[in-house]
Amino acid sequence: MNKELTIVKIGGKVIDDEASLEQFLIDYGSFHGQTILVHGGGKIASDIGEKMGIEPVYHEGRRITDKATLDLVTMVYGGLINKKIVATIQTLGINAIGLTGADGNVLKANKRPVKEIDYGFAGDVSVDSVNTVALNKLLNAGFSPVMCTLTHDGNGSILNTNADTIASILAAALSKSYDVVELVYCFEQPGVLEDLESKKVIPHIEEAKYITLKAQGEINEGMLHIMDTALDA
Amino acid sequence: MNKELTIVKIGGKVIDDEASLEQFLIDYGSFHGQTILVHGGGKIASDIGEKMGIEPVYHEGRRITDKATLDLVTMVYGGLINKKIVATIQTLGINAIGLTGADGNVLKANKRPVKEIDYGFAGDVSVDSVNTVALNKLLNAGFSPVMCTLTHDGNGSILNTNADTIASILAAALSKSYDVVELVYCFEQPGVLEDLESKKVIPHIEEAKYITLKAQGEINEGMLHIMDTALDA
Repeated sequence: MNKELTIVKIGGKVIDDEASLEQFLIDYGSFHGQTILVHGGGKIASDIGEKMGIEPVYHEGRRITDKATLDLVTMVYGGLINKKIVATIQTLGINAIGLTGADGNVLKANKRPVKEIDYGFAGDVSVDSVNTVALNKLLNAGFSPVMCTLTHDGNGSILNTNADTIASILAAALSKSYDVVELVYCFEQPGVLEDLESKKVIPHIEEAKYITLKAQGEINEGMLHIMDTALDA
Repeated sequence: MNKELTIVKIGGKVIDDEASLEQFLIDYGSFHGQTILVHGGGKIASDIGEKMGIEPVYHEGRRITDKATLDLVTMVYGGLINKKIVATIQTLGINAIGLTGADGNVLKANKRPVKEIDYGFAGDVSVDSVNTVALNKLLNAGFSPVMCTLTHDGNGSILNTNADTIASILAAALSKSYDVVELVYCFEQPGVLEDLESKKVIPHIEEAKYITLKAQGEINEGMLHIMDTALDA
C-alpha cells in the first residue's frame, strides 16, 4: 500500500469567522488524497446559547456540559456548523459526510467519572475508542468524513469531547491502515494550509507526521500527553 | 436478488413526545433487514425558535424558511433530533448514520422558485434528486441511514424539504435496487409498527408497498400527487 490520509482539525478564528472558514474550505478542497476534517465551534455555541438563556459554566477554563449545554452543542456542532461545512465542501467536488461519534458508531467515549468536579456529559476517548472498520468503510467508499466534536456512550447519550483529542486519536488509530497519516492543526488565518511547517514527529506512528501550525500555546499539554499515552498503548 | 428495504417516516406525536419516540425506536430496532428512517421535527424547532426569538412565518399553512429559520432547522433537525435518534438506535444493534441531503451528496434539491410567494430556503426534490449510488454504498456497507428533512442545492446552501416527499422519492428511487421497498408513515401512538395495515398499493413500484398508518388526513393530497408524478417519471 502507499496510502496517505490527512486529518485536519480546525478551531479558533478559522471556524468563528465566516470568511476565514470559507477561505479555509477552499484550501481544503484543493487537497489531494483522503482527508478527515475535525471541527468544534465553541464561540458560535456560546453566542447561540446566550440567545437561548443558557449560561456557560466553566471550571478552571474547561466548560461543564450540563443537559442544556449538551443539547446546545449537539445542535450547533452536529447541526449548524457541521452541515454548513459539509454543504460547502460538496461544492468543491469532495463527497463530504458529516459525522458525530454516534454516526456509524465511529467513536464511542466514556462519560468522564465524577471526582471533585462533575463535568457532566463530557466524553473521554482513547485510540481504542475509534471504530476504524466503520471509518475505513466510509473512506474506501469515497466519502470524506467531517467530524464534529461529539461522541456517544453506546447507551443512547451524546457526549461532548475535545476536538484536539479526537483529531489525535483518529490519527493514531488510522495509522494502522495508512502508510502516512498527517495531522494538521489549523486555527489561524486563511491560507495556512499552504504554509505548513513540521514541528514534531510522532515516533510511534511509523512515517506519520504530526504537524502543528503556529502552535503558540493552542495545542495543550493535556492533548500531547493523551497522544503520547495513546501511541504508547 | 431478493432484497427488501423499509423506509419509515416519522412525524407528529412520535417525534414530539420523548416517550413515544423512545417506544417507536425500540420497535424500529426490532425490524429485520435494511431500513432508512426519515424524520422532521417541526414542533421542537418551533419551541427552540421561540426561545431564540425566531417568529415562525407561514403562508397558507406552509412555513416560510428565512435565513434564521434555516439555521434553526439545520440545528434542530440535523443536530439535536438526528443525533439523539442515531445515538438511541445505536443501542439497539443497528449501525445508524445520520444524514442530511448534503452528507454524501445523497439528496440535492432545487431552491423553490419565487412566484407569488418567496418560500425562502425551501428545496424541491424529485426522484432524480436521489443519489442512489451513494445511498447504496452506505446501505451495502451495513449502515442504516437516518435522514432528516434537509437537502442541499449543490452550491453550498442547505434547504428545507418536506419529510413526506423525501420518504416517497427515496422509495421510488431505491425501488430500482431492491425487489421490495416498503414505505411506512408513522405519526401516532407508540406500538404502531406492530399493527400496520395496508391502505394503498402504489402501482408503479413493482412489488413495493405503500403502507399508510391511521392516515386520517395526515398524508396530504400534495404528497400523493408528488408521489404519483414521481413514479410516473
